[in-house]
Amino acid sequence: MNSTPPAPSPEQTTSGVSTDHPGVNELFALLAYGEVAAFYRLTEEARMAPNLRGRINMASMAAAEMNHYEMLRDALERRGVDVVPAMTKYASALENYHRLTTPSTWLEALVKTYVGDALAADFYLEIADSLPDEIADVVRSVLAETGHSQFVVAEVQAAVTASDKQRHRLALWSRRLLGEAITQAQYVLADHDELVDLVMSSGEGLTQMTEFFDRLQHTHSTRMHELGLA
Amino acid sequence: MNSTPPAPSPEQTTSGVSTDHPGVNELFALLAYGEVAAFYRLTEEARMAPNLRGRINMASMAAAEMNHYEMLRDALERRGVDVVPAMTKYASALENYHRLTTPSTWLEALVKTYVGDALAADFYLEIADSLPDEIADVVRSVLAETGHSQFVVAEVQAAVTASDKQRHRLALWSRRLLGEAITQAQYVLADHDELVDLVMSSGEGLTQMTEFFDRLQHTHSTRMHELGLA
Repeated sequence: MNSTPPAPSPEQTTSGVSTDHPGVNELFALLAYGEVAAFYRLTEEARMAPNLRGRINMASMAAAEMNHYEMLRDALERRGVDVVPAMTKYASALENYHRLTTPSTWLEALVKTYVGDALAADFYLEIADSLPDEIADVVRSVLAETGHSQFVVAEVQAAVTASDKQRHRLALWSRRLLGEAITQAQYVLADHDELVDLVMSSGEGLTQMTEFFDRLQHTHSTRMHELGLA
Repeated sequence: MNSTPPAPSPEQTTSGVSTDHPGVNELFALLAYGEVAAFYRLTEEARMAPNLRGRINMASMAAAEMNHYEMLRDALERRGVDVVPAMTKYASALENYHRLTTPSTWLEALVKTYVGDALAADFYLEIADSLPDEIADVVRSVLAETGHSQFVVAEVQAAVTASDKQRHRLALWSRRLLGEAITQAQYVLADHDELVDLVMSSGEGLTQMTEFFDRLQHTHSTRMHELGLA
């Protein structure tokens, strides 16, 4: 289903990126802020839930984000880095993304949860493929599919099956989510040389970068089908 | 300790309370609603945090509540009970407690976090002592000290050492928290016969009940000392 990137060859996995590359701390700090920002946005957006079950599902997802945050904090601690000051520099990109994609309905909140989580996972797993195994393992376990967002699929599918207007509205909404995510990802890369260098110094470098955003759009389309929005 | 517990048999209890006492499901449902309510209150009150570190501490505590909720949901599922409808009947008592104790400052939020968590733990651990081991184990592991609220102590101590006015204000505040907690606990017991029966049918019964609220006040005083509020 997912357009999984080709399995990394041994040369790529041990691609010459050192575990003490300065970009690694930056990547972990960026992920850490992303988890905390997602936590607070999920709990904020849960206000729109029509019932207790919806609020509980959102709270469970939010709790999973904090568990991930704690893994990243511990990984940074082992590398001698204090997570809070390190992550602060990524606040603006992530807060901007969330501010520019504030849902106005519960269905928009659900779609954002599903699509946003998936996009973040795509983005970070692509980067993980070019990292030393030890670092990639941290990234992969943080982003491991928890199944928490599966409750979204049935609810969105039911709503868009019942209403073409909802389908069109949510399809536009999800395109906007993708656009803002790409914009903010580009801002982050433009501002943080260590991160760009981390990706560049891996096997494929620039080719990987240019193909990456294409792949992101492709996996996004797959998810639109899953939600009944294609 | 966790490896293959003996098959539950209602007669095999030291407390004289059967594991299929109807009050057990009620207790788990009450705890479950308490966790979800605490989750949303902590994230709400975290808005008053003066900095990112404070918001992260509150988010970590909130995430721990949801992990506890998931343990209770699983325990109820094993007993054939759907958690969401079961917990709804405890909404009003817990929401009333939180509504009547909405903090107006970050320090009040911190004290509420610490005292509220501790009172809930006292309350449920007292009940656990009178339950069959198998049920008591669930209650105790849900309420296991996570150490998440320790960050509160230093911050409150510093504030009340610097200001007598703060000390008096927060001492009054914590007395109000205790009062509202006891009031709501009494409402819950008055409305839910199965819970009263669960406590009564244990070893000490009524004596335990009358002594319980005294002990609650005593442990509360201990905590006031810890926070520098005594």
